[in-house]
Amino acid sequence: MKKIVIFGVGLIGGSFALALKQASATLITGIGRSKESLQEAVNLGVIDVFSDTQESNIHAALKDADLVMIAAPVAQTSNILQSIKPHLGSNTFITDAGSTKGEVLTCAKEILAEKFNQFVGGHPIAGAEKSGVAAAIADLYVGKNVVLTPTLETNKDAVAVVTKFWRTCGANVSEMSAEAHDSIFAAVSHLPHLLAFALVDDIASRPNAAQLFSFAASGFRDFTRIAGSHPEMWRDISLANKTALLSELETYQNELSQLKQLLTKEDGAGLQALFDRASTARNAWAKNKQ
Amino acid sequence: MKKIVIFGVGLIGGSFALALKQASATLITGIGRSKESLQEAVNLGVIDVFSDTQESNIHAALKDADLVMIAAPVAQTSNILQSIKPHLGSNTFITDAGSTKGEVLTCAKEILAEKFNQFVGGHPIAGAEKSGVAAAIADLYVGKNVVLTPTLETNKDAVAVVTKFWRTCGANVSEMSAEAHDSIFAAVSHLPHLLAFALVDDIASRPNAAQLFSFAASGFRDFTRIAGSHPEMWRDISLANKTALLSELETYQNELSQLKQLLTKEDGAGLQALFDRASTARNAWAKNKQ
Repeated sequence: MKKIVIFGVGLIGGSFALALKQASATLITGIGRSKESLQEAVNLGVIDVFSDTQESNIHAALKDADLVMIAAPVAQTSNILQSIKPHLGSNTFITDAGSTKGEVLTCAKEILAEKFNQFVGGHPIAGAEKSGVAAAIADLYVGKNVVLTPTLETNKDAVAVVTKFWRTCGANVSEMSAEAHDSIFAAVSHLPHLLAFALVDDIASRPNAAQLFSFAASGFRDFTRIAGSHPEMWRDISLANKTALLSELETYQNELSQLKQLLTKEDGAGLQALFDRASTARNAWAKNKQ
Repeated sequence: MKKIVIFGVGLIGGSFALALKQASATLITGIGRSKESLQEAVNLGVIDVFSDTQESNIHAALKDADLVMIAAPVAQTSNILQSIKPHLGSNTFITDAGSTKGEVLTCAKEILAEKFNQFVGGHPIAGAEKSGVAAAIADLYVGKNVVLTPTLETNKDAVAVVTKFWRTCGANVSEMSAEAHDSIFAAVSHLPHLLAFALVDDIASRPNAAQLFSFAASGFRDFTRIAGSHPEMWRDISLANKTALLSELETYQNELSQLKQLLTKEDGAGLQALFDRASTARNAWAKNKQ
């Protein structure tokens, strides 16, 4: 029987647990900050047992574990790695589910030191604006991308084991450097989140916000869906991927300035060409995704 | 039997026609640029007859008409108004379905002159990225907002008649000035469209666009749905609402600059506060809309 320890049993960690338990008998220990939420996870059948972060309890939870999955908010990663290092056997591998990878790898290398080769950075491209263990579902990862970011030092067995667990969840696993990962997701995920947060904050802060919201329709609804995401999580992601995100914001502001210029000059052909490029690319992408 | 003439039988004009025909016997004449598309509208049962834009045909179509609905791209409004003015009886009212209202009113006033009191600007807040008569449905407007923008000169009967037609379609009708309308929709509709077009154009123009798109997921999908909208229509809307839109872009760029500053200073509390305001406002709005 596989033995897995999950730090942070929310939507991401909980769905990982449910998928693995559904595939085969697996003993899952949940560790987290909130006893109530862990008890809920046991009641929902997501995990088998839970533990607090006392050293002796972590020692017991990690004994003979095949895998430690860190699915807690990324700001807690450093504390979690520190708490597990002394109890980490040589056959236990570690992965995480954070949305940024560069900072996590730096932190893991520093803390795990000679055991850093047991760590494989990971990012499941799934989830939603929902959070919490009650939202966890066994098929969250079916057909979804999971990116792993092994380094030259990473143990090949660690990569193989983590890959196998994700494939068991139904995910498509690919590998790239942490730097490539962070730059890609700054563009296609982190930037859109910041843009949506910015639009809603901009509108909500106006004296006539109630009137504006009353006329907002389906376009606004979809555009701003990700502005309903978890503020603490997105604070951590933004800070962890600061460099790539600042560069994306810069590029985007240049794109907006170009749009403003076309509008100021009433350059209808230029505007239509820009909208046309975007519309063609968006519709081709959506068709391809189906 | 009511007699209605619709210029531009696409999603918007076609759905208006279907809703009215479903409510009671109504003779609907469609007029447009494409004979094929008008023939399709007849085949689909959306309109009863169609006509080209020859003067004698427009004269015949407008005879004893209760209402002329202009649902063609806004750039054609001026030509359409010119073509109908000589044939407009005093008991025929005119409305439109354009997404901007200031420019349409200015144009209607200039062209219709002494008959301007028969014109009521209108904007149904419905539709989608889809377009064309094949997408038309009878219940598109059920529960949706329709804004009318009468002026001090507008005939009260014209407002009453147009209101009644929209209520027959199931819409909630409200009235405001064209200026208030354009400023509201610059913020909650036109700006988000431009932001989505800008993001997709920004990404599509990069050398690694294919890789970026391959990792884009559901957040990107929803955020960019409106970037699949009709380029010509959005060129016209952008130009027609240029002033309000430039002011919105300015405000939004300031909001982004504020975000960049928080990120540069690694001000976690400030970022979380901004995300929290946005997330709270977005979720309250979504709950209220249900």
